[in-house]
Amino acid sequence: MSKAPAKPRLSPAAGTAKAPAHKAELDELRVQIDTIDRRLVELLAQRLQVVQQVTKVKQKHELPTFHPAREENLISARRAQAADAGLDPDYIEDLFRAVLRHSRVDQLDTLGRRGVRPGAKVLIVGGRGQMGRFFADWLRRSDYEVRVLDREDWPHLRSLTRNIELCLLAVPIDITPEVAAKVGPLLAPACVLADITSLKRKPLEAMLHSHRGPVVGLHPLFGPATTTMDKQIVAVAPGRYMEQCQWVLDQLTVWGNVLVETLAAEHDEIMGIVQALRHFATFAFGQFLHARRVPISRTLDLSSPIYRLELAMVGRLFAQDPELYAEIVFATPERLALLKDYIQSLQQNLGLVERGDKAEFVARFRKVAEWFGPFGEQALRESTFLVEKLVHRF
Amino acid sequence: MSKAPAKPRLSPAAGTAKAPAHKAELDELRVQIDTIDRRLVELLAQRLQVVQQVTKVKQKHELPTFHPAREENLISARRAQAADAGLDPDYIEDLFRAVLRHSRVDQLDTLGRRGVRPGAKVLIVGGRGQMGRFFADWLRRSDYEVRVLDREDWPHLRSLTRNIELCLLAVPIDITPEVAAKVGPLLAPACVLADITSLKRKPLEAMLHSHRGPVVGLHPLFGPATTTMDKQIVAVAPGRYMEQCQWVLDQLTVWGNVLVETLAAEHDEIMGIVQALRHFATFAFGQFLHARRVPISRTLDLSSPIYRLELAMVGRLFAQDPELYAEIVFATPERLALLKDYIQSLQQNLGLVERGDKAEFVARFRKVAEWFGPFGEQALRESTFLVEKLVHRF
Repeated sequence: MSKAPAKPRLSPAAGTAKAPAHKAELDELRVQIDTIDRRLVELLAQRLQVVQQVTKVKQKHELPTFHPAREENLISARRAQAADAGLDPDYIEDLFRAVLRHSRVDQLDTLGRRGVRPGAKVLIVGGRGQMGRFFADWLRRSDYEVRVLDREDWPHLRSLTRNIELCLLAVPIDITPEVAAKVGPLLAPACVLADITSLKRKPLEAMLHSHRGPVVGLHPLFGPATTTMDKQIVAVAPGRYMEQCQWVLDQLTVWGNVLVETLAAEHDEIMGIVQALRHFATFAFGQFLHARRVPISRTLDLSSPIYRLELAMVGRLFAQDPELYAEIVFATPERLALLKDYIQSLQQNLGLVERGDKAEFVARFRKVAEWFGPFGEQALRESTFLVEKLVHRF
Repeated sequence: MSKAPAKPRLSPAAGTAKAPAHKAELDELRVQIDTIDRRLVELLAQRLQVVQQVTKVKQKHELPTFHPAREENLISARRAQAADAGLDPDYIEDLFRAVLRHSRVDQLDTLGRRGVRPGAKVLIVGGRGQMGRFFADWLRRSDYEVRVLDREDWPHLRSLTRNIELCLLAVPIDITPEVAAKVGPLLAPACVLADITSLKRKPLEAMLHSHRGPVVGLHPLFGPATTTMDKQIVAVAPGRYMEQCQWVLDQLTVWGNVLVETLAAEHDEIMGIVQALRHFATFAFGQFLHARRVPISRTLDLSSPIYRLELAMVGRLFAQDPELYAEIVFATPERLALLKDYIQSLQQNLGLVERGDKAEFVARFRKVAEWFGPFGEQALRESTFLVEKLVHRF
């Protein structure tokens, strides 16, 4: 996407005019701009220093990182000032959202390290996989004592599970139930058993079956390349004795995660659409482009930002781990059935195009639009906002 | 997407702590932050004033709006200053890109109004349609004399075409050739005939056939809701006597458009993928969600920002004009064939899932990834940048 589109052959007449006379005038104005810009960066540096003092106070008194009302008041005040000064308030809001975000992430860097139960022993099963290592790192920097159990460590199962307060399963979907069955019986009654697979029904059943103590199913909706947990979502499927699991959830919240509670069955159905179907469709589209040898860079030159964004989503998938996607798409028979239904529905819509039935296409379109309700307008507004970001950054 | 995800039942212990003792300390620091922020907005207002002086100089001497090298130097200087001050250079670059964009758009607002051939008479055929009105507005504010020919105006064709220097066809794809055939013979030999439909081969043929003078095919890759032309792409398919068409292209460039030259056949093939196939797939996905009554808001609660973005693209489509999409999808027999091929390829990939052939899925995945080459990594990086914007804005 960063590739610049081909230049038109001629630039407009104005583009070629040059006269040293006003060059001096422009240079003088540019010096003024540079002075203002230097001052802006100085102020931003000062601001960060004050934010870091705030962080220290919060850290000392264990105060929360976020203060949403404070953020909104701050934005409102700057918008009002902007309007008075003849500046576009949206422009100023946009800038200050970026500034606030930066200071939030900076604060999380310090405050988000706090361990809710520092020193507690945690066992990560599958701790040498990508997500396993990811959680091991986060737990360690919050002062947990992290142990790892991977393929070759089963002989040490008994010693590894001794005195642990949390056992986190970070193994592939298809072996999670059997791993739970092996590990569960060795856990102390107060130990929390949790998993982080992208399915919840079967793993949760297996965990509840093998362990008599507190159980919770987690599905972090982000990958191991994530550098900040700020506002990252974790789906939480309650298992048993949730009050005893609470410290684990609190730890996620301290790191910056947003927890969304869901029942395992609901979770799995939604993930069928959100993950299996979308990933399959994206995979198939990339495969189609490849099979036809579509000239990607030329399509990017010649396309609207929305298509660039769509293509970026496709490219993105193929830059990641194929095994992970295979695991998600192939996970359950329900997912296969979903994919079949989807392709059938595509066939059916293709029928409209074959018959040249524009009227029915438009009628269906309207029905879906009505069903989406305000979501459509909102999506239009928000994707337009993103597209602007894309156009103007690259 | 702006709907906040469900709150976890309990916030971390730290979130409930409160003590008026350090409240004063925090309040004092917050006053400092507010003072800095007020000063930031003042400086941004000052900056805009200097930019407006620059605009005046440029306007007086007909200098171009953009100065890419100047922008990059400015960014580099701020990055260096940020690094020295212990600030994240990417953060500062991000902010200054937004600031520069704003001043560019502000300059375009003034400079982009300049008419390359002010006073010239322009006829817009289909001038009461959405895109017709859009171009009529832009041309009028650049001091062209705009005339409109719509359905009911055909009796006045002769007087409407008198002395015009540009005839712009802004009618639906399927009637563009016949409209060209009617209008072309009445144009003076020096008049430019251009169209703005999203297909280029047939309209261009029809225009070249009906008019002996300069002809150019245009495809603006944006909709009538666009408020700034800044960096918006227009595909340009050369017809005949391009040097005589140049002033029209120059006008687009002055408005801020980026022109990408393409042959009509290449254009149509790429648009089959970029528009017809993507729009059809998006339509069919929305239809599928509707048919299954998938709870949209719940999928948004429970999903990663990437899916939110994907769903926003779907919602976006349905917030727009169904007729326009029908026109694009149903445009040519080649497009129907493309859709058929696509669904066949989906079927074929479904076979892998039916057979449980993960190995072949992974093999195909790797082949596509290799074919994408560096585009994949780039797409991952850039979509991650956008996803961050999305997460932290909403």
